[in-house]
Amino acid sequence: MMERRQPIPVEEAIKKVHQYEKHGKVEWVPLKDSLGRFIAEDILADHDVPAFDRSPYDGFALRAEDTKEASSEHPVEFEVIDHIGAGMVSEETIGPFQAIRIMTGAKIPDGANVVIMIELTKTFEKDGTSYMSLKRPLKSGDNISRQGEEVLKGNVMVKKGTSVTPGVTALLATFGYAVVPVVKKPVIGIISTGTELLQVSDAMEDGKIRNSNLSMVYAQVLEAGAEPLDLGGVSDDFDKSYHAVKEALSKVDILITTGGVSVGDFDFLPAIYEKLGAEVLFNKVAMRPGSVTTVAAMPNGQLLFGLSGNPAACFVGFELFVKPIIYKWYFKEKPFPAFAEAKLTHDFPKANPFTRFVRAAFQFTGSQLSVTPTGLDKSSAVTSIAEANCFIVLPGGTRGFQAGDQVRVLLFQLEGGGSTCWMTN
Amino acid sequence: MMERRQPIPVEEAIKKVHQYEKHGKVEWVPLKDSLGRFIAEDILADHDVPAFDRSPYDGFALRAEDTKEASSEHPVEFEVIDHIGAGMVSEETIGPFQAIRIMTGAKIPDGANVVIMIELTKTFEKDGTSYMSLKRPLKSGDNISRQGEEVLKGNVMVKKGTSVTPGVTALLATFGYAVVPVVKKPVIGIISTGTELLQVSDAMEDGKIRNSNLSMVYAQVLEAGAEPLDLGGVSDDFDKSYHAVKEALSKVDILITTGGVSVGDFDFLPAIYEKLGAEVLFNKVAMRPGSVTTVAAMPNGQLLFGLSGNPAACFVGFELFVKPIIYKWYFKEKPFPAFAEAKLTHDFPKANPFTRFVRAAFQFTGSQLSVTPTGLDKSSAVTSIAEANCFIVLPGGTRGFQAGDQVRVLLFQLEGGGSTCWMTN
Repeated sequence: MMERRQPIPVEEAIKKVHQYEKHGKVEWVPLKDSLGRFIAEDILADHDVPAFDRSPYDGFALRAEDTKEASSEHPVEFEVIDHIGAGMVSEETIGPFQAIRIMTGAKIPDGANVVIMIELTKTFEKDGTSYMSLKRPLKSGDNISRQGEEVLKGNVMVKKGTSVTPGVTALLATFGYAVVPVVKKPVIGIISTGTELLQVSDAMEDGKIRNSNLSMVYAQVLEAGAEPLDLGGVSDDFDKSYHAVKEALSKVDILITTGGVSVGDFDFLPAIYEKLGAEVLFNKVAMRPGSVTTVAAMPNGQLLFGLSGNPAACFVGFELFVKPIIYKWYFKEKPFPAFAEAKLTHDFPKANPFTRFVRAAFQFTGSQLSVTPTGLDKSSAVTSIAEANCFIVLPGGTRGFQAGDQVRVLLFQLEGGGSTCWMTN
Repeated sequence: MMERRQPIPVEEAIKKVHQYEKHGKVEWVPLKDSLGRFIAEDILADHDVPAFDRSPYDGFALRAEDTKEASSEHPVEFEVIDHIGAGMVSEETIGPFQAIRIMTGAKIPDGANVVIMIELTKTFEKDGTSYMSLKRPLKSGDNISRQGEEVLKGNVMVKKGTSVTPGVTALLATFGYAVVPVVKKPVIGIISTGTELLQVSDAMEDGKIRNSNLSMVYAQVLEAGAEPLDLGGVSDDFDKSYHAVKEALSKVDILITTGGVSVGDFDFLPAIYEKLGAEVLFNKVAMRPGSVTTVAAMPNGQLLFGLSGNPAACFVGFELFVKPIIYKWYFKEKPFPAFAEAKLTHDFPKANPFTRFVRAAFQFTGSQLSVTPTGLDKSSAVTSIAEANCFIVLPGGTRGFQAGDQVRVLLFQLEGGGSTCWMTN
């Protein structure tokens, strides 16, 4: 019964999983529904920006040559022959000593080659006609935003694999993407194993606990932008579990199970992988929590993530192994989270025989990142996942750490990690 | 036409807006739909954790008093009378020199007062009966996780105003919240003003630009967890604009307009506020971009945010003024974003007559935060919003900054700011 397992280093485990990267197909969604999705094709500028020569100020458009003689002593007067706001196009052509009043963003009228800001002019009426005068010579081309000076038509504006943020939607709108090519979401099935599990809506029962991993992993899948599929629970029964897993595989891109991967007497996942003909990539990782995390691959490359039934280990297992695979599905260039150093605010006296992932919260003191474990006392063990926004990563083979020590932190909520494993960044 | 406006400091503007904070009502949603929502009532533990005395290991439960004589030379033998996994409850009561094989998480059987880890025992069969022997005396109570040692029933587990993360869903599930009390989302109307605006699906037209602010603000509202309502565009016509705004107010909790707040000849918002009887809290802020940002309050306290039509200014205006008001609606204790210092990676030679918000991207070098403006050259002006994940905040009255200088950054994607204005943190 006491199966011997060979633990492998975290980094090696991550790399093994990433040999089975897959990418999603494209689908088109309305721009309004694209927030948080991932771009499936390079987004091109469909026009120059600006699309036409335009005024960067509220002012007057005119011919620079008419201002040659202007000075404080000898203001030059211009007849104001039109008045246009952004979006309007004047039908007039500016002739000698004529000007058109123009608002920010409006197209430079024909005949004009310069704009003067409204604050530098004086306006007045004479015989029912509007006039403007100015006191300085102007240089042709001044105060004109030139067509294409920011972007040329055909430029790549948003790269494939970029996640759609509000700022990205502004680009998509500018370039006419009323529907957006995004990567189809992978369907990620979740099977909960364990006789001890009650439904969330169940009353408490002796010896049992409510299934919190399902809701947590479901939310982690959503947060990673994928499509969770709750495939229900299976009890600690081999045949039922085997059939549930087998059936699930036909419905999903990736399958997650929670529980059942330990070496306990009722942990059937290892035997299920064997019967399915799946290759077990690893079934023990040199880390805490989550050492029993198991990942297997079907002959067609479909991944089965066997996460621990322990909630903290389950959470870590998802963030380390599943989330980057989802981001890779989306062509994300850097699918791994930001990895930084931080100053430890409290002692962490536990020794670390293996790489330890400590649930923690980071904060800034000036420009210095500091980090506090969220599970320092027993009463907060339950809430430590809820309060954590990063992991402190303590190397295996180290003794305790003290307040003030520099430690490495995996900022799993932040982008900015590498293109391969975060540990090697 | 050239209205005089009195600019007020950013901090004062933020404080004025927050005099009109409102809070949302409660609604109940299924746990699976609660990710990203905000908790409307304190979440209580509905049971102790652990809910019963349980085993933290795979091992054997037995009576400590029977182990008194155990030693390496004299192992003590126990009859194994049952075998339970997590979720199972043994019906047996342990008597002298009896043990029950017990898996992690299972309830301690009646009669037992200690658990020994499986690794410290030897199991064998004798005449068809299972036995276990051990070689050391045990202390009553060892290796038992006591009922309530982590959480006592009635404890507050998640505070009102907390946003639901995957970790929080685990707590909600544990304590039986199959439906979750969350704050009803505020409906945030968006009206686009400007004759120059084309729809995203429109072909380009001379003198016009596509409306990118609508999609961007719509996405910003979604990202802040609120309910956007696209109320269409109005052209630069006073009466139409007035009626559109008036009608909109009856449909929304908060109204955003984009454009029309400048002092250009076709900017009607100021006159609309006046005709509505709204109090203008400010119509000029000592900042760049976004100096024309205007906020007004109706007599009933309903807020009207007049954001600039310039995309960068519009983006900043939302993050500074609208987002924290949404978070306050959700009872968020600290509605302002994280504010930190960072090392500037590039020169930023522009002088800053007013507080300047520079779109930028942050990264970590070790534990040191550094920051790079995303709009350093003209060609990236269009993409600078899309690439930004923070603002560098340069104080008004300063000259340029150089690479290596420490600057302040507003990390608008990160929580962790203060309960009042971020500038005073």
